Amino acid sequence: MNLNGFFNPESIVVIGASRSPEKIGHLILQNLKVTFQGKIYPINPNATEILGLKCFSSVLEIEDDSPDLAIIVLPAKEVKKVVLECIKKKIRSAVIISSGFSEVGNKEAEEELKKISKKKIRIIGPNCVGIYKKGLDMLFFPRERLKRPADGSIAFITQSGAFGSTILDLIAEEGIGISKFISIGNRIDVNEIELLEYLAKDINTRCIAMYLESIENGKEFINVAKKIVKKKPIIVFKAGKTKKGKEAVASHTGSLAGEHVIYSAAFKQAGIIEANSTEELFDFAKVLANQPVMNSNKIGIVTNGGGFGIIAADEAVRIGLDVPELPKDIIKSLGKFLPDYAVKHNPVDLTGDANTERYEKSLNAVFKNKEIDGVVCIVLMQIPTLEEDVLTVLRDTKIYGKPITICATGGRWTTDRMKKLEAFGIPVYQTPERAVRALRVLYEYGKILKMK
Amino acid sequence: MNLNGFFNPESIVVIGASRSPEKIGHLILQNLKVTFQGKIYPINPNATEILGLKCFSSVLEIEDDSPDLAIIVLPAKEVKKVVLECIKKKIRSAVIISSGFSEVGNKEAEEELKKISKKKIRIIGPNCVGIYKKGLDMLFFPRERLKRPADGSIAFITQSGAFGSTILDLIAEEGIGISKFISIGNRIDVNEIELLEYLAKDINTRCIAMYLESIENGKEFINVAKKIVKKKPIIVFKAGKTKKGKEAVASHTGSLAGEHVIYSAAFKQAGIIEANSTEELFDFAKVLANQPVMNSNKIGIVTNGGGFGIIAADEAVRIGLDVPELPKDIIKSLGKFLPDYAVKHNPVDLTGDANTERYEKSLNAVFKNKEIDGVVCIVLMQIPTLEEDVLTVLRDTKIYGKPITICATGGRWTTDRMKKLEAFGIPVYQTPERAVRALRVLYEYGKILKMK
Repeated sequence: MNLNGFFNPESIVVIGASRSPEKIGHLILQNLKVTFQGKIYPINPNATEILGLKCFSSVLEIEDDSPDLAIIVLPAKEVKKVVLECIKKKIRSAVIISSGFSEVGNKEAEEELKKISKKKIRIIGPNCVGIYKKGLDMLFFPRERLKRPADGSIAFITQSGAFGSTILDLIAEEGIGISKFISIGNRIDVNEIELLEYLAKDINTRCIAMYLESIENGKEFINVAKKIVKKKPIIVFKAGKTKKGKEAVASHTGSLAGEHVIYSAAFKQAGIIEANSTEELFDFAKVLANQPVMNSNKIGIVTNGGGFGIIAADEAVRIGLDVPELPKDIIKSLGKFLPDYAVKHNPVDLTGDANTERYEKSLNAVFKNKEIDGVVCIVLMQIPTLEEDVLTVLRDTKIYGKPITICATGGRWTTDRMKKLEAFGIPVYQTPERAVRALRVLYEYGKILKMK
Repeated sequence: MNLNGFFNPESIVVIGASRSPEKIGHLILQNLKVTFQGKIYPINPNATEILGLKCFSSVLEIEDDSPDLAIIVLPAKEVKKVVLECIKKKIRSAVIISSGFSEVGNKEAEEELKKISKKKIRIIGPNCVGIYKKGLDMLFFPRERLKRPADGSIAFITQSGAFGSTILDLIAEEGIGISKFISIGNRIDVNEIELLEYLAKDINTRCIAMYLESIENGKEFINVAKKIVKKKPIIVFKAGKTKKGKEAVASHTGSLAGEHVIYSAAFKQAGIIEANSTEELFDFAKVLANQPVMNSNKIGIVTNGGGFGIIAADEAVRIGLDVPELPKDIIKSLGKFLPDYAVKHNPVDLTGDANTERYEKSLNAVFKNKEIDGVVCIVLMQIPTLEEDVLTVLRDTKIYGKPITICATGGRWTTDRMKKLEAFGIPVYQTPERAVRALRVLYEYGKILKMK
């Protein structure tokens, strides 16, 4: 049985739907109602109607012959019974949000569920927050508290529901889009490997980001990933690296983490890009999803703030990128339109009175240089001489076929404008270091594509 | 002559005031007008009035006997003449915003200015953006584009005006406050050493953050800093670490950067805390300005998201902090009010349905433990069961006399709430790693205070 029922259901049953607005079984229904276009059947034996939707006392009572997907939010001890009812009703897919399984030592109940899953019904979870995609929001976080990201090209698999959800909120604020978000929890059936295979074929997904605390079948994971990375980049942020972290993993998702040094080596061998921090996971994912690879380590830096150019150059050199001197003819051509006090060497400093034209012409000169394979462009939008049409110039650098990452440091006025660039696949970062590291990942992925 | 005229002027002359709204000489006047309570004298021989303020054709024409401060925004070649006029008018302090000096190779003009400064007039700049503090905003960035931070306890010295200003915008958004911001530019007279001495005595400053590209008199800098760090922490982010970075420094502020390894060793010896990235400068400054030091490396982690607890534990161990197991009596006391499925070990996981009471009682238990010298508290505010009164609980942890740092990951809804904590000196971070590193800096500063 494939995973289609999870991602493209036409009808959904919510088992454990609640009338109380603060309950998870209410919030899920509420968020489904405002996003999902198909039929929704709330199950609650004590209610006739919730949020204007007719309630049923059990899945067996529903008029629909075989709804596509069940979402289960009952206490752990009641889950098995309703899963069996789902099977009877020919429901092929179930997301079990309920916690209280192996993560609290209740391995028996989890094993029971495991036995009945796979052949008769596919299960995501338990102990998860389920799925989020355009038109399918089953997250139990109020939408006013946790912003949902736009439709986009990054798929995000997370073993921790809270980590995944709050990161969605964070990236939604930056304007980053998501194709599919899957919280796998204790993954008694559908696991990261099967999801990787599914997402590899998903036309809406260009890059796969993962937060993992443990990997069930490491060898298979690596073998599957190895093939996929040639088509789509995979980024993994692996938690539970230290002894203390591994102990915490056991009480979180009931799983056992192996030695990180082994994971790391295997990731490298498979061509999986490892994120080394929370921040790097989407810093890397958004650039890999949208920008072409970099074929050499040679980058150009263009800035309207000298200090930022210096910081970017320092970081580039530190992480193995090269900031080569520009050829004489390029320096000469920059001299034709840049003022005397501007710096025509790499990093090119357009200085604090730069306007859109200076950016346009300088980026053109730097991108056309054969020695440069990618550009970090620092755009301090607060400068009074800089108008918003610079955003169009930055967006249109895609014609050069080489990658660009942007650093725009600042508050809400700046970030509100930068969202427009993110929407066009131009990745923007709050610090020069992050913009430089993002470019380096494109160089890394370029090497992965050449791997045998 | 002391620096008081720069920070507490009663009258200011703006030389180069402009009628054109996009010009620097206009923007400075505009921002001064809405913040400064004293007298403002715009100087412009071709205008009679700008922004409702009466204009003068030269400083010599002003009725005021000796205005306290001059801000000069004329082209470089006109600066010397007006500085001499300022001296004639007995103006004791001048901020020279104008660029076009040693940073573009014009060393002669800079030397001339240097000769006439110090004894007869004190100069900040040239090639800078001047000063910002409560009641004195001479930044030339429009206030709607670049948000100003609230009044606070961090002093910020920057060699790069653009870096400093856009960082102000960034931290204003987070709710971090500033006591004094000084952009020193080419520092022909007032330099980082004299400012350190001034800020050491400043009652409104509890912590000094610096962005530097070069240090003029390294030995003196270290000697001065060494004494100050016992009273107030000093954090330095030094750019121009690499050969490429150093070349860029020369064309930015016209100065020469030395070897970074020597700087680093000297910082360490003097008890200066080094920030290794743009992000760390204020991540560290805000915790050092507000939280007590940590006397050991033993930390507690309290979270409502298991994954975050794991990431925090990993980072803590990686950077040399200890996440000790809690004593049996503490675990027992946690068991009295935490549900079965919560984790009573360190990291303490209150789980996804945590409410304020769980935070209050758990933090109380963990803080009262003698083995724990600081706490990283992860508070995912998007969780439906968590109400805003948790902010009060977090604020009131100061009664324990031990430091706390907060991780709250998310979008605007979360960050808007977290600003309230920042206003009370509780430092909040977007990722667990940053919150953990901030706690480690308190341990580092604790050791500095014990240094001989």
